[in-house]
Amino acid sequence: MDDLAAPMSRLVDELKRLPGVGPKSAQRMAFHLLGVPKEDVERLAQSLLDMRESIQLCTRCNNLCEGPLCHFCNDSGRDAKTICVVEQPNNIITIERTRQFRGLYHVLHGVLSPIRNVGPEDLMLKNLLERLRDGEVQELIIATSPTSEGQATATYLARLVKPLGVRVSRIGMGVPVGTELDYVDEATMMEAMAGRREL
Amino acid sequence: MDDLAAPMSRLVDELKRLPGVGPKSAQRMAFHLLGVPKEDVERLAQSLLDMRESIQLCTRCNNLCEGPLCHFCNDSGRDAKTICVVEQPNNIITIERTRQFRGLYHVLHGVLSPIRNVGPEDLMLKNLLERLRDGEVQELIIATSPTSEGQATATYLARLVKPLGVRVSRIGMGVPVGTELDYVDEATMMEAMAGRREL
Repeated sequence: MDDLAAPMSRLVDELKRLPGVGPKSAQRMAFHLLGVPKEDVERLAQSLLDMRESIQLCTRCNNLCEGPLCHFCNDSGRDAKTICVVEQPNNIITIERTRQFRGLYHVLHGVLSPIRNVGPEDLMLKNLLERLRDGEVQELIIATSPTSEGQATATYLARLVKPLGVRVSRIGMGVPVGTELDYVDEATMMEAMAGRREL
Repeated sequence: MDDLAAPMSRLVDELKRLPGVGPKSAQRMAFHLLGVPKEDVERLAQSLLDMRESIQLCTRCNNLCEGPLCHFCNDSGRDAKTICVVEQPNNIITIERTRQFRGLYHVLHGVLSPIRNVGPEDLMLKNLLERLRDGEVQELIIATSPTSEGQATATYLARLVKPLGVRVSRIGMGVPVGTELDYVDEATMMEAMAGRREL
C-alpha cells in the first residue's frame, strides 16, 4: 500500500483489522470515505468512540447496556420466570428475532474451553446463581451453541443448577429449516432423529 | 436492531453505510470492536479523522497526497516523459502492482458521462494540458476503464491531446489472463482478435 498517501494507508491498515475485511475491501471503504461528506466520517468516528465509552454490562444479566440494567431486565412486561442463557450478547438478537421468547436473558460471555484455558470461573455465572436462588425463576433454557464447547457448557450448567430446584432445558437441535437433507451432517441428523416430534 | 444498546445500534448503523457492509457484517464488526483493546478503537477513529483532515490532491497530477506534490511527482527516479491517465487515484495501485510502469500519472477524478451529466469541464484536465505544453512529455497512456464511459473519455482525450504533438496510446484490451475462453463476452473477444500479437 506504499502507493497511497500515508493517512490513507494508515486508515486502510486499521480497517483491515475488522473481521471479514481484506485489503481490497478496506481500500474500497477508505476511498468511499474520502468521497462522502466530512460530517459522515466524523459521525462514524464519534460512534466508535461513544460505543466504547458508554457500553457497560447489565449488573443482573451481563447483557450490554448504557445504565445499570439492560432494557430486557428493565422491562416489566418480560416474564421473569424464564431465563435463557446465551454465550454472547449478540446471541440475544438471534433469539429476539423469533418474537416468541418473552423471558429474560443471562449472558455468560464465553463457553467452557479446556484448550483455550477457559474454566467455570471465567464465565459470568455468579450473578446467574444469585438470580436462581431467590426462587422466582422456574425454567432455565440453555441456548449455548451446539458446538462441543457449547455442549460441555450446557452439561456443566445443568448439573450446577438442577440442585437449586430449577427446571433446565436445552434448545432443540436438528436439521435447519430450509436445508436439503443431502447437506446435513451425521451429528445433526442424529439429533434430528432423536428430537423427532409426533405430527 | 432494537435489541442492542443504543450506542451499539448507532455504530452498527454507521458501519452499514460502508460499501459492501450489510447489517450482519456491521454487527459482527461492532461486537468485534467491543472486544478489542480500547486503544485500537481510538486508533481507528483517529485514522478516519486524520485521513479526511490531511488528504489533499497533488497540484500536478491530482493524485492523493499530504503535501503539495504526490510521491510519484516528487520522485526524481520516475520517467517524466510518460504520463499514464487514470480515472481515480485507486487505479494507480492496480498499475503500480505490475512493477513495470516507471512514468508519472494523471488522475481525472471521473469519466465523461452524459447520463450522469459529467462533461469535459468536470474532469481535471486543465493541469494535464499544462503538463503536456512544456514539451517534456512524449507519450500519454490512457488507462481509463474499457467501459463505454471510459472509452468515450479516451477518445475525447486523444483528440484533445494529439494536436499538441504528444503520442497517445490506449491500454490493451482482450481476454484477461487466467480466464477460460468459454466465459469471454463478444466485445472482449473482438478486442482480443483485433489486438492479437505475433509470436
